[in-house]
Amino acid sequence: MTRVLYDLCGLDERLRFSPYCWRVRYALAHKGLDVEARPWRFTDKAALAFADHDKVPVLVDGDEVVTDSYAILRYLDRTYPEAPLLGDGQAEVRGRFFKHYAERALAPAMMRTIIMDLFNAIHPDDRAYFRESREKRFGRSLEEFHSPAKGLAQLDAALAPLRGHLEDADFLDGAAPAGADYLVFGFFMWARCVSSADLISNADPVHAWRERMLDCHGSLGREALRVTDIEGAYR
Amino acid sequence: MTRVLYDLCGLDERLRFSPYCWRVRYALAHKGLDVEARPWRFTDKAALAFADHDKVPVLVDGDEVVTDSYAILRYLDRTYPEAPLLGDGQAEVRGRFFKHYAERALAPAMMRTIIMDLFNAIHPDDRAYFRESREKRFGRSLEEFHSPAKGLAQLDAALAPLRGHLEDADFLDGAAPAGADYLVFGFFMWARCVSSADLISNADPVHAWRERMLDCHGSLGREALRVTDIEGAYR
Repeated sequence: MTRVLYDLCGLDERLRFSPYCWRVRYALAHKGLDVEARPWRFTDKAALAFADHDKVPVLVDGDEVVTDSYAILRYLDRTYPEAPLLGDGQAEVRGRFFKHYAERALAPAMMRTIIMDLFNAIHPDDRAYFRESREKRFGRSLEEFHSPAKGLAQLDAALAPLRGHLEDADFLDGAAPAGADYLVFGFFMWARCVSSADLISNADPVHAWRERMLDCHGSLGREALRVTDIEGAYR
Repeated sequence: MTRVLYDLCGLDERLRFSPYCWRVRYALAHKGLDVEARPWRFTDKAALAFADHDKVPVLVDGDEVVTDSYAILRYLDRTYPEAPLLGDGQAEVRGRFFKHYAERALAPAMMRTIIMDLFNAIHPDDRAYFRESREKRFGRSLEEFHSPAKGLAQLDAALAPLRGHLEDADFLDGAAPAGADYLVFGFFMWARCVSSADLISNADPVHAWRERMLDCHGSLGREALRVTDIEGAYR
């Protein structure tokens, strides 16, 4: 059986930076499941028509087609119950808060910091689409939205609860990483792959957690190609 | 058996506003446990000497003395396992994040908004202590720290993950309130009891959740005395 993940790529096919796809890559590694991470670009909507969807991640697992990163984590728990990612009941409901925290508190702060790096990392053929859709969402140009000073201050505030949490345990899910860690860490992979911006001081407990996350599952994150590894791509 | 909770009071003995004590009041109600909530003031350190502690909440449950709101919730789960507050394993670890989120993201934003109302609600004999300890913590005077404009903007940003979470379910813990709800809601009781500040628009999903929380457990929160109920106390 072939398991395929449609995975956003940038100006180089090996450059993979979608935070939502990284959640799934880590979730699959957590379950010990192999996957072919097939490169996909923003404008290649036709390639996802079979899934009746227009965004990645899309997971094709045998006959099953699953879209949306959180739904994919839930699907993996149902189908491969060993090593739960999110679990059930109260654990799952609480786990979902990490999704909202990552998407609504961390991601906007990171986005303000790295948006021009992100734009630069995208495939040239996707840039017009990216600019148009994001400028519509932000209500201003990418250049106006871009503000590392504001973004980093916002991120510093947004990380406060995470710092408290990591004073108690090595991972968001306790002694070992699981769903809550992957839901949040996807955004750190996103920033790491497209930018060399220094988001967190190395004295921050979040920094140490990020290092542990880069190392886990056979250094999955640390081995990922970054735009800074591509000659001439990083301005 | 008498169960006693040492509970912070303000200029009126019936005015109870500690966010940490409210967590415990709700947790006890959740378990269906009666309690005598005994009034205590900031400077009455001698009354807590028996507990080898200088802050409330302090719960005396028969022979057991437990301090710290989170530790009290854990104690209640161990001693009265019916109707779990935090639960165990992954549920508990994730539940703890709501504690940090409330204390480090919401509380500082609320504090900036209500600090002068809070100061006014405190017993006159406690005010010098409160001013000195808080000015030391903030590194500036209460008056300089006080900024409803900044506090409300900060709160609006900090509430974003909660809004996302409440789009999926009525309570933070799903269909019914439990530990995660109480960990966060304590701070809304704090603000409500000492201030009439309008922290959240009534179009906000957080507003509807707060109303549900005020109503649950026999309108425990809604029936609590507010400073605005005390004649002449609210400026």
